[in-house]
Amino acid sequence: MEHIGRYSFREYLKVVEGFHGSQAPGLILGGIMVDYALSRIEPGILFDSICETAACLPDAIQLLTPCTIGNGWLKVIDLGLFALSLYDKHRGEGLRVFVDPAKLRDWNEISDWLYKLKSKKEQDKDRLLAQMEQAGRSVLSLRPIKIKPQYLGRTGKGAIADCPQCGEPYPIRDGALCLACQGKSPYMGK
Amino acid sequence: MEHIGRYSFREYLKVVEGFHGSQAPGLILGGIMVDYALSRIEPGILFDSICETAACLPDAIQLLTPCTIGNGWLKVIDLGLFALSLYDKHRGEGLRVFVDPAKLRDWNEISDWLYKLKSKKEQDKDRLLAQMEQAGRSVLSLRPIKIKPQYLGRTGKGAIADCPQCGEPYPIRDGALCLACQGKSPYMGK
Repeated sequence: MEHIGRYSFREYLKVVEGFHGSQAPGLILGGIMVDYALSRIEPGILFDSICETAACLPDAIQLLTPCTIGNGWLKVIDLGLFALSLYDKHRGEGLRVFVDPAKLRDWNEISDWLYKLKSKKEQDKDRLLAQMEQAGRSVLSLRPIKIKPQYLGRTGKGAIADCPQCGEPYPIRDGALCLACQGKSPYMGK
Repeated sequence: MEHIGRYSFREYLKVVEGFHGSQAPGLILGGIMVDYALSRIEPGILFDSICETAACLPDAIQLLTPCTIGNGWLKVIDLGLFALSLYDKHRGEGLRVFVDPAKLRDWNEISDWLYKLKSKKEQDKDRLLAQMEQAGRSVLSLRPIKIKPQYLGRTGKGAIADCPQCGEPYPIRDGALCLACQGKSPYMGK
């Protein structure tokens, strides 16, 4: 693996550390996955992305594609699977990249990491990252996908008004009170 | 507003455009909000973040703090409110910053944007961003918060095994099959 997106492998490690806080293995293999998907997607299309785990992988997508959580082009649908898809944001057709268990036989460190067979303490991180670099796309598979219609397109928030209880602006389609005042606040007392 | 985090206001506009794809107003006001929160949080504590909307604001948090979606230090709890909190990741105590409707009276462009009174076409974006820069923290309020215990700490995925149906590694606590094979896949056909 010489390049990940527009970075050299070494540059990518630095970019990951700057954004994510550490050279997490999930972002390294994740970067190779995103790079693979980008190399196969139809050039020039506007794509959205789905990430099938909340752990690590979303950051590889945010670093290497135009898709972020805040711009809505990346959706995290946490199925606990180490996989992602890129797809035409209008037609919903695209591809899914995932780690293929059948291809992991020669890569014990990657396998031990993915199946959590070693604690972080037991893990030899240098060896693990080296195996990821050497293995590159050889441990991945790719298949075409089509997104279910309900995941396509974006719905706006609709009209906004002040919540009659807390006074903050909220989408009135949420009801007579904002969701926080309806009991969904993550804070004590409100 | 001279600075946003470690950036000048102008530098921040560029950083936003590079990550988010455009100088979205929500990231500009969002940056001022994150900067305000950072200036008031107890120095040296390890903090996590909650973002109360999925639109735009999560990216300001990801650009200006160590918290990202992929590292788990940022949670998006979409209440439709333009607000965020930073809090001690162990004790759950921290502060919440929000746009305060009572303070918006002199800032018609910000108000029209927040309440969606103008279409994007009608919006004068230069004037809007200029008002945000001039208003700075004067349109914000801040209050102490304490996180409900269920939102504190992190739970690991637990043991991993291959799904007997699709063959991919999944957290066995999810059941006899992975969540995708249980019908939660966003793709047609699986």
